[in-house]
Amino acid sequence: MDGGRLWETLHSLAEIGATPAGGVARVALTDEDQAGRNQFVSWALELCCTVHIDQMGNVFARREGTDPLRAPVVVGSHLDSQPTGGKYDGAYGVMVGLEVLRVLHDHDVSTAAPIEVVSWTNEEGARFPPAMIGSGVYAGAFSLDEGLAAPGVDGTTLGAELARIGYDGPEPCGQPDGAGRRPIGHYIEPHIEQGPILEAAGATLGTVTGVQGIRWYDVTIEGQSAHAGSTPMEIRSDAMVSAALLVCEVDVIARRRAPEARATVGTLETGTGSRNTVAGSVELTIDLRHPDAAELASMHDELLAFAAGERFADGPGGGAAGLPPRPAVSQIWYSPPIVFDPVVVDAVRAGAAAAGFEPVDITSGAGHDACYVSQAAPTGMLFIPCADGLSHNEAESILPEHATAGTQATLNAVLALAG
Amino acid sequence: MDGGRLWETLHSLAEIGATPAGGVARVALTDEDQAGRNQFVSWALELCCTVHIDQMGNVFARREGTDPLRAPVVVGSHLDSQPTGGKYDGAYGVMVGLEVLRVLHDHDVSTAAPIEVVSWTNEEGARFPPAMIGSGVYAGAFSLDEGLAAPGVDGTTLGAELARIGYDGPEPCGQPDGAGRRPIGHYIEPHIEQGPILEAAGATLGTVTGVQGIRWYDVTIEGQSAHAGSTPMEIRSDAMVSAALLVCEVDVIARRRAPEARATVGTLETGTGSRNTVAGSVELTIDLRHPDAAELASMHDELLAFAAGERFADGPGGGAAGLPPRPAVSQIWYSPPIVFDPVVVDAVRAGAAAAGFEPVDITSGAGHDACYVSQAAPTGMLFIPCADGLSHNEAESILPEHATAGTQATLNAVLALAG
Repeated sequence: MDGGRLWETLHSLAEIGATPAGGVARVALTDEDQAGRNQFVSWALELCCTVHIDQMGNVFARREGTDPLRAPVVVGSHLDSQPTGGKYDGAYGVMVGLEVLRVLHDHDVSTAAPIEVVSWTNEEGARFPPAMIGSGVYAGAFSLDEGLAAPGVDGTTLGAELARIGYDGPEPCGQPDGAGRRPIGHYIEPHIEQGPILEAAGATLGTVTGVQGIRWYDVTIEGQSAHAGSTPMEIRSDAMVSAALLVCEVDVIARRRAPEARATVGTLETGTGSRNTVAGSVELTIDLRHPDAAELASMHDELLAFAAGERFADGPGGGAAGLPPRPAVSQIWYSPPIVFDPVVVDAVRAGAAAAGFEPVDITSGAGHDACYVSQAAPTGMLFIPCADGLSHNEAESILPEHATAGTQATLNAVLALAG
Repeated sequence: MDGGRLWETLHSLAEIGATPAGGVARVALTDEDQAGRNQFVSWALELCCTVHIDQMGNVFARREGTDPLRAPVVVGSHLDSQPTGGKYDGAYGVMVGLEVLRVLHDHDVSTAAPIEVVSWTNEEGARFPPAMIGSGVYAGAFSLDEGLAAPGVDGTTLGAELARIGYDGPEPCGQPDGAGRRPIGHYIEPHIEQGPILEAAGATLGTVTGVQGIRWYDVTIEGQSAHAGSTPMEIRSDAMVSAALLVCEVDVIARRRAPEARATVGTLETGTGSRNTVAGSVELTIDLRHPDAAELASMHDELLAFAAGERFADGPGGGAAGLPPRPAVSQIWYSPPIVFDPVVVDAVRAGAAAAGFEPVDITSGAGHDACYVSQAAPTGMLFIPCADGLSHNEAESILPEHATAGTQATLNAVLALAG
């Protein structure tokens, strides 16, 4: 393979939707997304691939294998970006797939299974929430109708914009039970980590073994507004103190399960907001994550037990000792952990080792198309480090040697799986 | 004395600026404030008092004594209100003074010292911040020029509006060292508590021994924004966790000094504000109060020691264990505790007892004109309960029997002090 060519191709693609600050704005189904797709298709056609577009606009570039009974080994990710995104989030995985096709083409290699490179529609969800709609419809998480009806933040719909840019393809996608959808034998998604773990560990490659389960909570705390000077501590019902106790406990719940667990209170708002008024109400959010469903459930249990415990008083006006008011904790979303297919994970790990690297096992903390695809086909991912873990940011940055290493490892894994 | 007459007078006054919700809008130097002042002056003139208005618009109604060498015993408070204020905040104190004058008039009582009833200008500060300007200029905390130049929130100035309503009086106020200002022998300010302590204690009257000292702080916490899923706990620099630790500690600092100390974090804002992002920055405020300056200083020391301690890491990116970032705590205001004059405090306490009540010693948590006046003359206050501690609110409510009790106690104290 040719690391220089990969690097050049990645940066050639990044010119489409390039921003002055060095990032990329190639938001789903805009003219820039259309231009990015056209470029990808054009590169694929140069390699004598066939190009297949499904009803959700997912694009598959196919190189035939020698065994007509084998389903393809598929490599890919997405070409759309955040409005102020980076050059590598998504694009890296598709360009790695393209480089794999080029290497096979250069050396006229035959594989038993076909090789396909896919670009999924609207992974970011920045214009058409939610995220990962293209792979979601593919895997049956949403119906085709739901996918096409997804409303844009600009008053459009996904289906209308897909037709506008000419990517409303004919191939079935989102039929009940996946009927007629393109088969996938194995799926590998190379991606930048979007986190700091590999960089901190000094590792070049990460074998992604799965994706964290996530539980999201909304918390409301109703206390009693009161004058900060004239209200004694022992008759207060201070919602801010309840919130603080909860933030501290949430942090501890994760630290008890280091290093895999995560827990975050990212937002906290007071209903009052005067420096000399005891906070009468607070709303906050909690985000709990763990790669193991049972551990995540026990984090959930600990959170609810703490909220139900003796640190808080029921009803307004505080308890006998001015205990802060009891928080109402409500789970609003649960995304179970995903464990990737051991065959694909092993192929990725072995491919990295064969490329001369010692890959680190890692759990993805972010969602990827691979999450949905894993519901329909054996799936794995490969991570490369990104500087400071920074992503969804124009300053997103990777090293050329990491980009090359990830491509070599993917090529090795694809060859092993395709036979 | 006549409790029914007091109650009727209070509610007659409350018709001036009455709001549909049952409160009062008699904001300083508006037409409503002018009408309230005129009413007070008119009632005082009916009692053959002389009325004196100083350069700040403070109004003094004077009943002569028999000893020309004695400075007057002064009772009063303020007639202005919050924009959506209650019927009793301020007005109660002035009307109690008026009822004292009426009782002396009814029974043709002579006192050695003159008796005066005062209404201070712009106590609330709602239209012309800061609060308590009239008594502040009287006591020398501000110069006359500063007082008259105070800008209104509506583009006016205090001086211009004072002239407009005809209350820019001729008597000196705010000269250097208080030169020429009206002498005050003793000052008693009856007021609703604006807090829940008397009600909770089942007490009818409170002898106010002083006013809490206050320290205000601004706190900024700079951590590092990070993805809630991909960032391990041990490399986080989570500003929300720092904030929570601080809120919990602030609460404990006050509870260690129960029941007198108060500590409040009333506002907390995150710079980020996404449920799946570790908070990169937080700003919050702290309000510490104690009636004893040394105790308040030790609360200050404990706060700073905690912020400087081992729970926090210096610099961005967390410590070795992902400790949260160190807060920067900055004191922005200090108002020392006020201890009222023992002679006046004792007179109030004895006056309450003589009226048949067992008064509770109480420290004021809110500011009053008495705070400034205490810098110029021996001063004390008397509190009566208000329902649920509610004030600065149209629903402000007191009981007639409490209003009567406070008036009787004040009358007793005035007679004792005036001889």
